[in-house]
Amino acid sequence: MKKLSEYTPEELDVFEYENKIKFNAFVDAGLNINMARGKPAREQLDLSEAFLNSVTHHTGTFSNSGEDCRNYGLLCGIEECRRLFGEILDVDYNNVIACGNSSLVLMYDYISQCMTHGAGGHAPWAKQTGAKFIAVVPGYDRHFAIAEHFGLEMIDVEMTRNGPDMDKVEELIKDPLVKGMFCVPKYSNPDGVTYSDEVVTRLAKMTPAAPDFRVIWDNAYVLHDFYDDHAKLKNIMKEAAKYGHEDYFVEFASTSKITFPGSGVAAIAASNRNINEISARLSLQIISYDKLNQLRHCHVFKNLEDVQNHMKLHAAILRPKFLAVEEVLDRELTDLGIADWTHPKGGYFISLNVNVGSAKYVGELCKQAGLTITKVGATFPYGKDPTDSNIRLAPTCPSVEELKIATKVICTAAKLAAARALRHEMAEG
Amino acid sequence: MKKLSEYTPEELDVFEYENKIKFNAFVDAGLNINMARGKPAREQLDLSEAFLNSVTHHTGTFSNSGEDCRNYGLLCGIEECRRLFGEILDVDYNNVIACGNSSLVLMYDYISQCMTHGAGGHAPWAKQTGAKFIAVVPGYDRHFAIAEHFGLEMIDVEMTRNGPDMDKVEELIKDPLVKGMFCVPKYSNPDGVTYSDEVVTRLAKMTPAAPDFRVIWDNAYVLHDFYDDHAKLKNIMKEAAKYGHEDYFVEFASTSKITFPGSGVAAIAASNRNINEISARLSLQIISYDKLNQLRHCHVFKNLEDVQNHMKLHAAILRPKFLAVEEVLDRELTDLGIADWTHPKGGYFISLNVNVGSAKYVGELCKQAGLTITKVGATFPYGKDPTDSNIRLAPTCPSVEELKIATKVICTAAKLAAARALRHEMAEG
Repeated sequence: MKKLSEYTPEELDVFEYENKIKFNAFVDAGLNINMARGKPAREQLDLSEAFLNSVTHHTGTFSNSGEDCRNYGLLCGIEECRRLFGEILDVDYNNVIACGNSSLVLMYDYISQCMTHGAGGHAPWAKQTGAKFIAVVPGYDRHFAIAEHFGLEMIDVEMTRNGPDMDKVEELIKDPLVKGMFCVPKYSNPDGVTYSDEVVTRLAKMTPAAPDFRVIWDNAYVLHDFYDDHAKLKNIMKEAAKYGHEDYFVEFASTSKITFPGSGVAAIAASNRNINEISARLSLQIISYDKLNQLRHCHVFKNLEDVQNHMKLHAAILRPKFLAVEEVLDRELTDLGIADWTHPKGGYFISLNVNVGSAKYVGELCKQAGLTITKVGATFPYGKDPTDSNIRLAPTCPSVEELKIATKVICTAAKLAAARALRHEMAEG
Repeated sequence: MKKLSEYTPEELDVFEYENKIKFNAFVDAGLNINMARGKPAREQLDLSEAFLNSVTHHTGTFSNSGEDCRNYGLLCGIEECRRLFGEILDVDYNNVIACGNSSLVLMYDYISQCMTHGAGGHAPWAKQTGAKFIAVVPGYDRHFAIAEHFGLEMIDVEMTRNGPDMDKVEELIKDPLVKGMFCVPKYSNPDGVTYSDEVVTRLAKMTPAAPDFRVIWDNAYVLHDFYDDHAKLKNIMKEAAKYGHEDYFVEFASTSKITFPGSGVAAIAASNRNINEISARLSLQIISYDKLNQLRHCHVFKNLEDVQNHMKLHAAILRPKFLAVEEVLDRELTDLGIADWTHPKGGYFISLNVNVGSAKYVGELCKQAGLTITKVGATFPYGKDPTDSNIRLAPTCPSVEELKIATKVICTAAKLAAARALRHEMAEG
């Protein structure tokens, strides 16, 4: 088949006409499908039924060390929960704080602390006029929103197939006002990229001009593989320690997409110095986290293997959903040469790149057809995709049948957008 | 009996000798009693057994409005939980955000937001050089620690039997750099004072020079009465609204001392404008709070009456503990005229004032005898009690028997401290 760019004007007319009819049929169908956010499906939540009442008066409310989890105490969490995250992240449990239900709030708080009180004993970022942050793009809108909220100017660095463009990163960190970067190192949001060993090593070796440089290592999808033959992420903490650079990295994870979003447990892993700095602030913020919920998790998950086995059940639900979307994209768009997309091996997103200048229009068309996708532009700082081409698809929540229809809507919208762009080009040419 | 100040030198010798023997006996007994923090006793936690598994797959995980509490969503909490706090605080549920497990973190976050982003659209407090905060003394150390952390200079205002010294407050708020104050309006920490109607009205009527003045209304002991004939606190939100002053007050409460400390639910109540400002920030911080835990609470507590009935069970446990402490204090110290103390009708503390300059020494003696009390000085900003006289006693956790012994230790220590002070006076005089 021909690429769309090779179509004659007459062929383009027919193509556009046919796809308009198709599109109108979708509009008439009155769809209501949401692919906007990385939200687990109900059948995924059902997998975690055991966590609802894994702590009762029969099981007891005491931690392994004899702490009554119903009462105040243990700011850094119960030991078994710290150990569980230690296993998940492959770090010493003494370098883990088991916290509440959200890793996002831990990242927000960490940045907030750096702004008002600085990192590593250095001046508060808020007092270092012009403090900047590296934004790997496309990326996670909630990361960018935190940086924007605190007035950290974001500098885009492009994501490659192996992770952030390290040449660019190594150049930028020569500026002492560049204070850090957000990384989703495994199955990145939205590209599904797992940083290569080389990228992790180059990150670990970095010698930023800013002594208070901090990488927010958001390991959100640490165990969120679709296949047994899954991506392997090099351990940043161990790698950084080789060069005495462990203070540059603060790692975050949670069970939000393992057990219950909003009712899981989140954790921080960091160097001794960072853990001390973070826990000193935490001691002013909170008396203790929800240890009963930590205990609920530890009563079911005795070790890493239990979590891994649980994740296989998630994978069995998610794999066919991602494959359904990819299959429609492959079939409908490959030959036309008007888009490219990812085939992730884990995580929560497919990243679709349509023709430059077309993404917003595709988003509008999807909306008209009753399909909600992530706000176009959201994968870039300030919500502005400089080339207006990236669209994040979140296939986890809808059913496979819904996803097939939704992806057809997207493909039809992408075709119409591409045809419109081509027509403009022809008119101008 | 005679006051200690009326003792002859010889009588004082005997008094001191006898109390030293008594004190040494306590030291020899190897006590280990902790009266430092407002921590519920185990039998109080047992009252809330029903909350451990009040949400199971049998009860279902859906809120009244049909939201699956296991998943993301509802940043402001489930409606029934907002309504429950609305009833507890006597405010419209639309003005309530039901949050996570800690009201302290909500207060910390609110102050933090005021520092970096300002209140009510005004300049960030951090950019208003010399921003100050009123500290009602004696007060809650964790409040003071937050203000200190953010560099808000604290100005002491004395607590009276009816609440803060309002003449002083009304004078201080003429300074536009005085940005707010912390209040524990019912059964204040540590004095157990409930603000009188007059004080609440005067607070509500305040017209601070700072348009971004904010009162942190920490209603921590809103239902924590020991007696049916309990203190009645005038509703600050309704009172403030009469004068169009509702934006000056942000109210906080939690079930930490109703169900489980650390595993309860906390809430914010505020004006429409403040709720909008707070929830806009929350939307960057967190996707949603632990709605399953909110649901656990709402499955057991259907309404205010259920909570009130539950609080009567707490009262039955706490009342004899407080009475035991007061009875020993009354018996051992009343005649000597070397101390005064409170007889609270609710809350978590007894406030003991020993002779000026003696509190630290009393604290040291208690420590020698194996009794841990709240760090002396902690009830004042920067941990410095200007007259070194206030001691906070937290009688909730130990048993009645332990409390009797502990209070005897305290009384003996207070006697020795008073005798020492008197001897110095005599020597100097």
